[in-house]
Amino acid sequence: MKPESILELHLKNALSKCSSPGSPKRLHMAMHHAVFPGGARIRPRLCLAIADSFDNYDKNLAIAAAVAIEFLHCASLVHDDLPCFDDANMRRGRPSVHKEFDERLAILAGDALIVEAFRHLNNCQTRHFARLRLVLNLVTRSVGSVSGIIAGQAWECEKRASLEQYQREKTGALFEAAVMSGAASAGSEIENWRLFGEKLGEAYQVADDIRDVIAHPSDVGKPTGRDEVLGRMSSARELGLSGAVAYFDNLIDEVVASVPKFNNDAKLTKLIRNEAIRLVPKKGRIKVQKIDRKAFS
Amino acid sequence: MKPESILELHLKNALSKCSSPGSPKRLHMAMHHAVFPGGARIRPRLCLAIADSFDNYDKNLAIAAAVAIEFLHCASLVHDDLPCFDDANMRRGRPSVHKEFDERLAILAGDALIVEAFRHLNNCQTRHFARLRLVLNLVTRSVGSVSGIIAGQAWECEKRASLEQYQREKTGALFEAAVMSGAASAGSEIENWRLFGEKLGEAYQVADDIRDVIAHPSDVGKPTGRDEVLGRMSSARELGLSGAVAYFDNLIDEVVASVPKFNNDAKLTKLIRNEAIRLVPKKGRIKVQKIDRKAFS
Repeated sequence: MKPESILELHLKNALSKCSSPGSPKRLHMAMHHAVFPGGARIRPRLCLAIADSFDNYDKNLAIAAAVAIEFLHCASLVHDDLPCFDDANMRRGRPSVHKEFDERLAILAGDALIVEAFRHLNNCQTRHFARLRLVLNLVTRSVGSVSGIIAGQAWECEKRASLEQYQREKTGALFEAAVMSGAASAGSEIENWRLFGEKLGEAYQVADDIRDVIAHPSDVGKPTGRDEVLGRMSSARELGLSGAVAYFDNLIDEVVASVPKFNNDAKLTKLIRNEAIRLVPKKGRIKVQKIDRKAFS
Repeated sequence: MKPESILELHLKNALSKCSSPGSPKRLHMAMHHAVFPGGARIRPRLCLAIADSFDNYDKNLAIAAAVAIEFLHCASLVHDDLPCFDDANMRRGRPSVHKEFDERLAILAGDALIVEAFRHLNNCQTRHFARLRLVLNLVTRSVGSVSGIIAGQAWECEKRASLEQYQREKTGALFEAAVMSGAASAGSEIENWRLFGEKLGEAYQVADDIRDVIAHPSDVGKPTGRDEVLGRMSSARELGLSGAVAYFDNLIDEVVASVPKFNNDAKLTKLIRNEAIRLVPKKGRIKVQKIDRKAFS
């Protein structure tokens, strides 16, 4: 079985434990809609890839962390799509949760995915209590109100905000947690991985900003051009399209360079390079050049 | 210092760790508005009262559990008050969070209180890892989508639901968790306390239903008569007012009787009896009689 399919199986199993025959059906359907079918599942894949690059990692803990991180990512998308935030009707090529169900179930499904992420993680079969506590701390912090996703999202409600901090919290924080949780599940020093996670998170956000300008909604499965419409901070708006692409390429080089020296796992570097191609493909680069030529002619 | 003031201090300290000088201010203000000033703080007080009735309880763990439970309770109120649910403009005598700030900050403040509750609990200073994991499991389950607050709330989105299950999940579950977490922080067998928590949670829900009919908004600090308007399930609607009061009295007797035999802490019984008087006071009972006489005359 391919690693991707195994991950999907773990997510499915975890989600099945979020309901019982006697629990409210529509809530579970809304949660399912939020998690399946997924996107690239890059955060959990990263977590597992880092863990797997160590010999003696705690497999149950790494998998539980990966699942929790994906649940939390999905929860953030469901709440972000709500009418009072992005008002996005589509996600991953299908109606967003509040469109398919209603606002109440979208709020509850998001809440439930947050709670169940932590329940799942806490209840994983492990004897490495200290590692588990470290992972729980990394993951809660990465979505929390100090410097996590929720803090990032909350900058949209402030008069002034820095683009860098906004992106680091809204996107980077969970990438960092995914990477560091992978290392923590192996009992490895997590600080060695912070820079890697940070740079990678930033690269993803920049790629997302670029795609918001150049991609067609059918390519990314959600509305595009939203940053402009909503007047939101974006690297593409700040650096220009070509500038953003150059910045992205530079970030990917930095990511690869920041893999700790003791870790010579070629699979990890390959994963990063492939993701970079998926995120900003050749077709997209040609489009950027065309748009920029048009703008300057 | 009174136990109440000490609890407020712990809540204040915990909330102060939910932000930093560089984090978004309005989010923190919204979270503060959700937690302070509080209501009766009955759930955390119960948790601490149970813990305190044992000689060798883990004080840090019990306090962290109490704080987490109160954060989760406040989070559920903030999301319940939203326009798409109860559409309640007032809470604890002040504008609800979405009225004082906006819907976005109400959703984020609720999300943040959930996340920070678990972060706080996980990070408490304890060497009792097994007890901590048990408390984390009890608390996550009590608010989750299988049989916790979120499941309870989700019954409002289903065509059919049982009043008993709805109330047990929406209110009872967190009471049960509060009681059982108190026992768990002392390493005591939690199952001895399930019935006590269950009955007490039910009593609170029945009292809330009664007050929704007879109380003035200024007495309870939130809109009343909402069950009728929203067509929601309620003991007062199902049993009639006098029936609901009799049922409440019976439940309180059952609560007191279900205190485990080995635990002869008179303080606990006193707390329950005093709470019963606070919840359905003499004035309210007279009002119930008057309303019932009117209905039958």
